[in-house]
Order: sequence, then C-alpha cells, then structure tokens
Amino acid sequence: MEDIRIDKEFTTEFIAEVHDRRSDVLIERLERLYPADIKEIFDELDLEQAVYVTSLMDIDKKVEVLAELEPDVRKRFLEGFDEEQTALEFIQHMDSDDAVDVLSELSAEEASQVLSYIPDKEQSLFLTRLLRYPDDTAGGLMGGELIKVNVKWNVAECTEEIRKQAEEVARVYTVYVVDDSNVLQGWVSLKKILLAKEKTPIADIYDDNIKYASVSTNGDEIASLMKKYDLIALPIVDSLKRLIGRVTIDDVVDFIKEEADKDFQMLSGISQSVEMKDRVWVLSRARLPWLIIGLIGGVMSSVVIGQFDGELKENVQLAMFMPLIMAMAGNIGVQSSSIIVQGLANSSISSDSVFGKLGKELLVSLINGLVCSAILLGYGLISGNSNDIMTVVSIALLAVILLAAVIGTAVPLALDRFKIDPALATGPFITTSNDLIGLFLYFMIGKLML
Amino acid sequence: MEDIRIDKEFTTEFIAEVHDRRSDVLIERLERLYPADIKEIFDELDLEQAVYVTSLMDIDKKVEVLAELEPDVRKRFLEGFDEEQTALEFIQHMDSDDAVDVLSELSAEEASQVLSYIPDKEQSLFLTRLLRYPDDTAGGLMGGELIKVNVKWNVAECTEEIRKQAEEVARVYTVYVVDDSNVLQGWVSLKKILLAKEKTPIADIYDDNIKYASVSTNGDEIASLMKKYDLIALPIVDSLKRLIGRVTIDDVVDFIKEEADKDFQMLSGISQSVEMKDRVWVLSRARLPWLIIGLIGGVMSSVVIGQFDGELKENVQLAMFMPLIMAMAGNIGVQSSSIIVQGLANSSISSDSVFGKLGKELLVSLINGLVCSAILLGYGLISGNSNDIMTVVSIALLAVILLAAVIGTAVPLALDRFKIDPALATGPFITTSNDLIGLFLYFMIGKLML
Repeated sequence: MEDIRIDKEFTTEFIAEVHDRRSDVLIERLERLYPADIKEIFDELDLEQAVYVTSLMDIDKKVEVLAELEPDVRKRFLEGFDEEQTALEFIQHMDSDDAVDVLSELSAEEASQVLSYIPDKEQSLFLTRLLRYPDDTAGGLMGGELIKVNVKWNVAECTEEIRKQAEEVARVYTVYVVDDSNVLQGWVSLKKILLAKEKTPIADIYDDNIKYASVSTNGDEIASLMKKYDLIALPIVDSLKRLIGRVTIDDVVDFIKEEADKDFQMLSGISQSVEMKDRVWVLSRARLPWLIIGLIGGVMSSVVIGQFDGELKENVQLAMFMPLIMAMAGNIGVQSSSIIVQGLANSSISSDSVFGKLGKELLVSLINGLVCSAILLGYGLISGNSNDIMTVVSIALLAVILLAAVIGTAVPLALDRFKIDPALATGPFITTSNDLIGLFLYFMIGKLML
Repeated sequence: MEDIRIDKEFTTEFIAEVHDRRSDVLIERLERLYPADIKEIFDELDLEQAVYVTSLMDIDKKVEVLAELEPDVRKRFLEGFDEEQTALEFIQHMDSDDAVDVLSELSAEEASQVLSYIPDKEQSLFLTRLLRYPDDTAGGLMGGELIKVNVKWNVAECTEEIRKQAEEVARVYTVYVVDDSNVLQGWVSLKKILLAKEKTPIADIYDDNIKYASVSTNGDEIASLMKKYDLIALPIVDSLKRLIGRVTIDDVVDFIKEEADKDFQMLSGISQSVEMKDRVWVLSRARLPWLIIGLIGGVMSSVVIGQFDGELKENVQLAMFMPLIMAMAGNIGVQSSSIIVQGLANSSISSDSVFGKLGKELLVSLINGLVCSAILLGYGLISGNSNDIMTVVSIALLAVILLAAVIGTAVPLALDRFKIDPALATGPFITTSNDLIGLFLYFMIGKLML
C-alpha cells in the first residue's frame, strides 16, 4: 500500500467529502487510515461531522480513535452521545485502560451512569475498581485485556483459550501462566506455543522467571523497570500475587515522554503542561507563577542592594559587575541542580551519601570557579577598570560559584529526602534564590575590601 | 520465583563467591539473574573477575550482558579478549544492532579484524554495511534479526520457517510478509498464524496496511512514528522497499530517554551528557563552556552599564532594580524558547507561519508583562522608593518582557530554519543575550525619562 500523509490537502479533501456525505468514499478512506491519523482529522471536524464520520467506522476503529483523542476534543465529541450510547457504542468495546481514561474525564455522576448501562456486570465492576487507582500508578496505567492459561493445561488447551480470548484481546504481548487460584506463575511466548506439540504440558515449556509489579507501584518505577529489562508488557498483581492486569510498553512510552516534558517545563519555569497551540489565557496562566516569583526575587534583590547604597555611591563600578555575578550564580545553580535532579529521576543516584556528592560538586565548582576568576582577572588587567574593583569581583565570583553549587546540590537532595519532587528546585526557584544570596555576598566582600 | 534485589549486600556476597571461585553457586545465581542485573554487578568487578563470571554464563546471556554494559566498562572488559575471541565468543552470537554498537566503539582497524574472524561471511558483510549508517538513523538503530515469510506460502510453511529462524531470532515481534524479490508486502501476527488452519494461504490472512521507514530516516522520526502508532517494531526498507531490518521499541525507549536527557542538559547549560558519577574533570569540562559564555556576557554587561555611569551616579536607585530587570528578561526568554523548542521536537509546530507564533507569544507576554508591571507599581506606592524610578522600572519591565519574548521565540525558530538544533537557543545562551539587551533597554529608558 502507499503510505497516506495527513497533510492540509488531505484533510481539506476529507472534510469536503464529509460535507457532501460521500459515505462510500469515506468508508474506504477510513479503512486505510490508522486511528492516530483519524485523530488528527477529528481535531478539525465539528461535532455533527465527527458523529457522522464515527458512524462510518467499524467498532474496533471507532473505540481506538476515541482513545487517541485529546481530552478536550474527546469531551466535546462525547457531548454528541447520551450515557447509554457512550456505554454501548464505546466504553464496553474499549480496552479497560482506555475506558478508564475516558471515564475519569467525566463527572463522577456521569461516569457511574455510563457504567450502569454496561451489559457485562463483571466488566463494569472491573472498570469501577480501576477508576479508584491514581493515574500515575500501575493500577491507573494497566488494562485487564490479557491472555492467561492454567499451568496444568497442555498446548492444545492453551491454543483453544487463545482462540476464545482472541476477539477481546487485540494484541497478544505474552501469554501469562497462572495456577488454579489465579496466582501468577510465569509466562510463555506465542513462539514457543506455536512450535510445541499439541500434547506438551505448559508446565514443561513455561518460564517462571518473570518480572511483575503490584497495583500500587508508581508510574516512574514501572517505566524504569520496563526500560531496564526491555519489557513489552508487565503483569500487574494484587497483594496475593494474583494476576489482575498488565501495563503495555506503548503507555509507558507516552508516560516517559510526558514526564520528560514536565521536567523540561519545570526547568523552564512553566508550571503546567502547555503547548504552543493552547489558548493565550492558558499559556499566560501557566507562566505567570514563576514570573511572579522572579518579580518578588527582584524586589528582594533591590532591598538587599539598598542596604549597600553607600558603597554603590562611592564605587559606581560595583554596579557594573552585578550582572556578571548574578548570571554566574544562576548558571552554576541550574547546572548543579539539574545534574542532581536528573540523577535522582534516573535512579542513578540515591539521596544517601549526601556529603560525598556535595564534596564532589564543590571540587568541580572550585575548578570551574578558579578558571573563571582567572579569566576575569586577566580581563581586568587589560580593561582599564580599577584593580581594586576587579580583585573584589574575582574573589566574589569564586565565592558565589562555590555557594551556588552547594545550594544547587543540597536543595534538590533535601526536597527528595522529604518526598517532594526535586524538579521544583530547578529553574526559576534556584536562579532567584542564588541571585539574592550571590548579590549579598558580592556587596559584603565589596564592603569589606574597598 | 522470588524477585532478586541487586543491592549492596547481594553484590558483596556475589563478589565474595567470585573470589572463592564457587562456580556451582554462581552458575545457579546467574541463571536467575537478568542481563540488566548482571550488568550492575559487572560495574563492580575487575577484569579478571569479569572474564571468570562470563565463562560461567551460557552464550545467550553472555552476549546480552555485553550489550547492556556501559561503553567504557565494555571497552575495559573486551581488553580481556583478543580479536578472534571477541568475534567467536561474542559478536557472531549477538543481535546485529547490538553487535554494531560494540564494533563501533572499537578502532576501525580492530573492528575490521574482528569482522574478519566471523565465520559466516554474510553476517560479517551485513554488519559492515550497518556500521556505515550514522548512530541516530534507522540504519544505525536497526537489527537484521526478524522473521519474514513469502506471501505465496501457506501457514504450515510459515510455521516451518519460524521454527528454522527461531534459534536466531530470540523475540518474535511480528512476522513480515515479502514477495520473491524481498519487497515488503505487509505483516501477519503470530496470533493469526497460531489460530489459522495449516493449509490457509498467507495471502488470505496477512495485513497489507503496514508502517515502515527507510534506512536513512532519522531517529527522531522513527521514535515519533512508533510512538504515534503504538508500534512494537518497525520494518526498515531500502530504496526499492526491500526489507532489510527492523527497529524495536526497546531501542526507541532508550533513544527517547537519551534525547530528553540531552535537551534537559542543554537547557541547564551542560554541553554533553554527563552523570553525577562521572569523574570530576569530565563534569567540569562539560559545564565550563556555558560558564565562559556567561562570563563573557557578564563582562559585556559591565561595558554596557559603563556607558551609563553618569545616570547611575545621579540615581543610584537605578542599580537596585537591575537584578529584577535581568531576572525577568531571563525567565521570559527561557519560557518562550522552551515552548518553541519542545513544540519543534514533538513536531506539534512547524517553522512556517512564524508571524502567527510571534504574534501569539507577544500577546501572552503582553498580558503577563502588564500584570507584573502593575504589581511592581503597586509595590512602588508602598515601598518608599521615588515614584520616578518606579515608573521607569515598570515601563522598562514591560518593554524588556516583550523584547525577551520576541527573542526567545524568534531565535529557536530561526535556528530550526537553518537546520541547527534549536535547543542551542535555550538556557544560558538566551539568558545571556536577554540580560544584555534588557539592561541596555532599561538604562536607555532611564536616561530618557529621568
């Protein structure tokens, strides 16, 4: 087949066909499109058009498209259906992890109404149970669709079970092996089942070496476990090790990307996940908190400097090097805190042996501080600034660099110790506090030496 | 099985057993451990111990452990083997993508020597070919291990082929369907093969709707393709659409994480990938370039301020609000550039319609600027600073915020247009240039108004 590019031209043509209700052409087009592509077209349709296009898709594709939609588009779209329709046309056919994502965006009342219309009571109970787990835990990430076989069966019985469950489980990642009480025993690959004789007992070919996690494990741990062991799916068990679901790698990929974006935005001083295409007011609100922190920091700096206005009047040159001191304090602080935050996020460091880390960071900063101070002194000799001032600035620079390194290292480690997200300590927060302390140190040294 | 935790205690015990050459205990332990766990133990072993432990593992595990090791640990480890041993004991048994990773870390001469010892000439030719692709392209990420079947075959022939290739292909992601000329036609899932009758022609059950990419596609595109379409493996074709390899999701997960870490470090002003555990000199060198840029920026600021020393002497209060102006210019610049850089990385924006984006960014900044200036004026009324100064600072703040937003938006878009990594424009670079321009604007406004 030729690959279809979803560009402006394609979308325009598609919308024109929707407008003309050319259902035959559209059905054929939709069959060739992936849910992720249809999602992009949906972003451009109005409610009535979207409902019409949905009616042209088969059930599997319809629910996959719904799962792909952005929450706000999905909310708007579902307004075209009442609770009963939502339950019967969508939720009951969805993978449970996707269904829970949709349900959790509804009000509690709507969600329980939708659930009451689901004909299969077991399914509706399972979804109710999943809804209780927080978003960023294994329980919130997992789905119930999996193939499991009893350890006492043979390959033929196992194949029969896969046939029975095949309708419900679209993509088979691994076949899980459980005992009579549904306790996880191990796994067996489809390849092994395919290549084994029909009479072979599962007990002979399954692998009891299996990674699993409990429902309450947090998303970060799930992601690093799956990344470390190159897993495509991870079985999730309850406290009695009974198999209740699985997390798949595609959800983990999304999770990893979202977490990385969040850290990046935190470091940039943006307080919530935003995109360029969000509305002006949303963008503005996401950015304002850090700006106001910066503003307060700036006002506090002005008060600190105000204490030294005598020194400033005598040596106006001192003011000239304030930006240098501030910039260096900020840069060093961000560098130090980022290395720590990233190390904590990747679990390559733990928060014990704090003194070892502080010592190392101080050594790195001492080297860099000495290099920078030496360059500055060299510049001072050729610049025509007074030697006294340049000496003060160089000494203050070294002191500020060392202090900024200590703060940049210690603050995220301390936050982590108290179970607060250390990423809070990167970006504007560390820059602002280092500005303040750096300037104070600078003027104190100036006051003492001049 | 009980899950084994690789903690300090476990490692100490393990090393003691290595010391005592307790091969029976060690063999049993190694069988229960995943390659990613053994990798962690290897980080603690010396060369002679590592070679001994390697001799206790079966071939599959041995090569997987080698693939897991960090490049520097691997380099040290391979010094325990000559080129012939490296070829026969490791490379020839490795997945081709892992083998290429190892070979690319050797000198060109060593690599070609190792390749000459590989008995299977076809394999050694394929590896030579893979070595030519850059690291961050599909060619550099892909491996050749895959199951492919001819579209003319039936299910029984297909099963036979899987049996033949099973030894070589450890994990079957998808079965690819090709024609007589090896041109990719589509795919069929193991589930479908398992559930179909033996005589069923593959042509009846395969799916011709398949995503693929060419060898030269870059890693970012591969990652976003696999993420968007929830793919576990992506077939890679040459210019004639002949199937030559596949990229698997575990490599893409690593790629996504590495890229995110790189962007994060760029934003923090760290010029290369470093970790807390790297040596002091490495850490120092990675951070020095941006510090020196900050230093030069600071010196340039001092020159700019020097031009206004008349104004400063007259109004020392002007100096008090320099930090505020600088901090806000820096924060706004980092926020604007980060949103753009992240949008470009996630392909949610393209670099056309530059003016639309600039306009939106200006609007967001105008709102935030007005809010911040209003707060500052309010503070001015109660702070006892002169009203003239506070008016100057508030007006300058608004002007600087707008200018910083323009620079923060325009610079990464411009870099992207010229095919330079826009992430270069985040962090210290944007902060430093905004400091300079912001201060200049501040003093100009002060000079005109006071």
